[in-house]
Amino acid sequence: MKVLVINCGSSSLKYQLINMENEDSLAQGLVERIGIEGSILTQKVPGKDKYIIEQPMKDHTDAIKLVLGALIDETHGVIKSMEEISAVGHRVVHGGEKYATSVVINDDVMASLEECVKLAPLHNPANIIGINACKNLMPSTPMVAVFDTAFHQTMPQEAYMYALPYELYTKHGIRKYGFHGTSHRFVSAQCAEMMGKNIEDLKIITCHLGNGASLSAVKNGKSVETSMGFTPLEGIAMGTRCGNIDPAIVTFLMKEENMSADDVNNLMNKQSGVLGLSGVSSDFRDIENAVKEGNERAKLSLDVYNYKVRQMIGAYAAAMGGVDAVVFTAGLGENAPETRKDICAGLEFLGIKIDAEKNNVRGKAVDVSAADATVKVFVIPTNEELVIARDTQELTSK
Amino acid sequence: MKVLVINCGSSSLKYQLINMENEDSLAQGLVERIGIEGSILTQKVPGKDKYIIEQPMKDHTDAIKLVLGALIDETHGVIKSMEEISAVGHRVVHGGEKYATSVVINDDVMASLEECVKLAPLHNPANIIGINACKNLMPSTPMVAVFDTAFHQTMPQEAYMYALPYELYTKHGIRKYGFHGTSHRFVSAQCAEMMGKNIEDLKIITCHLGNGASLSAVKNGKSVETSMGFTPLEGIAMGTRCGNIDPAIVTFLMKEENMSADDVNNLMNKQSGVLGLSGVSSDFRDIENAVKEGNERAKLSLDVYNYKVRQMIGAYAAAMGGVDAVVFTAGLGENAPETRKDICAGLEFLGIKIDAEKNNVRGKAVDVSAADATVKVFVIPTNEELVIARDTQELTSK
Repeated sequence: MKVLVINCGSSSLKYQLINMENEDSLAQGLVERIGIEGSILTQKVPGKDKYIIEQPMKDHTDAIKLVLGALIDETHGVIKSMEEISAVGHRVVHGGEKYATSVVINDDVMASLEECVKLAPLHNPANIIGINACKNLMPSTPMVAVFDTAFHQTMPQEAYMYALPYELYTKHGIRKYGFHGTSHRFVSAQCAEMMGKNIEDLKIITCHLGNGASLSAVKNGKSVETSMGFTPLEGIAMGTRCGNIDPAIVTFLMKEENMSADDVNNLMNKQSGVLGLSGVSSDFRDIENAVKEGNERAKLSLDVYNYKVRQMIGAYAAAMGGVDAVVFTAGLGENAPETRKDICAGLEFLGIKIDAEKNNVRGKAVDVSAADATVKVFVIPTNEELVIARDTQELTSK
Repeated sequence: MKVLVINCGSSSLKYQLINMENEDSLAQGLVERIGIEGSILTQKVPGKDKYIIEQPMKDHTDAIKLVLGALIDETHGVIKSMEEISAVGHRVVHGGEKYATSVVINDDVMASLEECVKLAPLHNPANIIGINACKNLMPSTPMVAVFDTAFHQTMPQEAYMYALPYELYTKHGIRKYGFHGTSHRFVSAQCAEMMGKNIEDLKIITCHLGNGASLSAVKNGKSVETSMGFTPLEGIAMGTRCGNIDPAIVTFLMKEENMSADDVNNLMNKQSGVLGLSGVSSDFRDIENAVKEGNERAKLSLDVYNYKVRQMIGAYAAAMGGVDAVVFTAGLGENAPETRKDICAGLEFLGIKIDAEKNNVRGKAVDVSAADATVKVFVIPTNEELVIARDTQELTSK
């Protein structure tokens, strides 16, 4: 069977068509500027030229129409008709406390997604729009929702509760949810496989270091802790997000800078992280270039970033009562040997030790631990689309 | 020489007179409800009855007049005249980036304290009032300021900088300062002494667990990390403070609950922590009693508290590249064997292991590590007043 994986943003849409017989990616594409002037679709098919369509798309239904058209296009496509798509898997950011696993989408699920809009006002509305657009165009194709939060629903209460008045939890659902669950789940499973061990016997720390970044403590195959929280702002420093700060800074800024709540939210989410500290960029390649040119704030931003990840690894080892393996994944985790080296420097007391030569790798699943390390360190490319496709296949084949 | 130690709150004042020949505490007292109906002074002198004065005190000058009167009182006092007080040491909460050590108070220092009011609007004004009141009454007695922040000024930049726009640091001084420095300094030095080692060769994690609570990573005698931050709100959960939360919760609450910045600040500082979670009390003894009666939220609040301290110990070991000793101090740290046991449970992988029998101790300096522990665990009663008196003696004897 072939599964179409859809990941909708507010004005963008990523997709991938996967052949589940061999898990090959048949085509992948990106639609940008939906509902904005300059809408554009870019599709890549192995062995074919890049296919670009520039034409107005007033909404996500327009966009998905074009996606389906591109997939069945005689020259650039990969299937003969829409009927070859057996099911659609949708990435959904927030499943609240209701969904600890992926689920076939029905009216009840749609209602629950609406309920979660309050918890993810920037993300869930776009996911809902994407699902509805697909349902319009493919009314008889089964669809599955795969949640970013689901994998972390196994966290124990002491990990997900904040030390805030308990009523804020019951009334507003204020607790730690965690995100990037699909990625943490994939790479932790992959890690166990590479170790030739049962994941139920392992304590794994997964470091998803991309534009957004989070760590997860995966004990016996279950997420018991993660660094993102009520929203994807919490945790370590990121490209443009501040991560953990003294929460009193929020109210201090509102008073001293006469900022609104939205202003501060925007500052913490979009103007902070390594971008805010370095003043250079949120892209680590730009920052590394600036460091080479002697930019001290660029250097500081990397030091802060690496230091916070390093501390979190120590914290998560403590949360699990030990650690057997550390996994680096996502853009930076997979492609920045220097970052991995700097993060692990000083963790030798835990038995974490990287082999410099093995670590000189990008985008490949490799054990980069030194021969005498007692904790394994892996680089494992994440593949959230594949997890979504697998879940979709499993749930719709029942 | 005899040194008077003063710790001023907005409507209270703690004092202690210390004989520096033998470091004995000659008298200690507390003045409450200054400027409020029902002002009261309570003084304790070893071997004498408690001395209580209930009379109106309109301000801190009134209060200090009564303190001096109580100290030279023929029946209840301990000195013959004010002239026996060679110097006064003041606890000051915030010294900003200017003071990494204690300092003799002069006009420049007073101006600097005023500058720091913005950073500690609840604390520094009371400290300033207390100093001025003392200066009025004892104009020729030298005075010293001992800062809660000073010990942490050795933190490296990657530890004290938030991943926020750099300009917020230069413009407003938004960075991690840390508090309880006098306590962390005292117990870490004491720990090295008890180990018979040079503090410059040690990595010590000090856990000051009182009403307010903070941890510090003390490497080679210097604080390199601490859990309180820009304000004393950051860090682990406390009696009534939330510690680290997703900073987006602040703005979420303002919107959803229609709260002002002050409302949220109040909620995070006074209605959160174990009080907010348990709904019982901020006093751990009350919570423990509730747990015995089967109160699940009380149990949850302790689980959250202990879990956060446990994780922070792991994080600080990572920050220092290892750990040689963990110290528990302050109200809870000194007097709650159960809390110490629960915090350390699961840290065996670091070599931390408590001896149940040795750990059954309250308020005494004791090594409570198990025989086969590779990391020492100590209970060490803190004595901030003694540190203040020692600094005062040293600086005013020059």
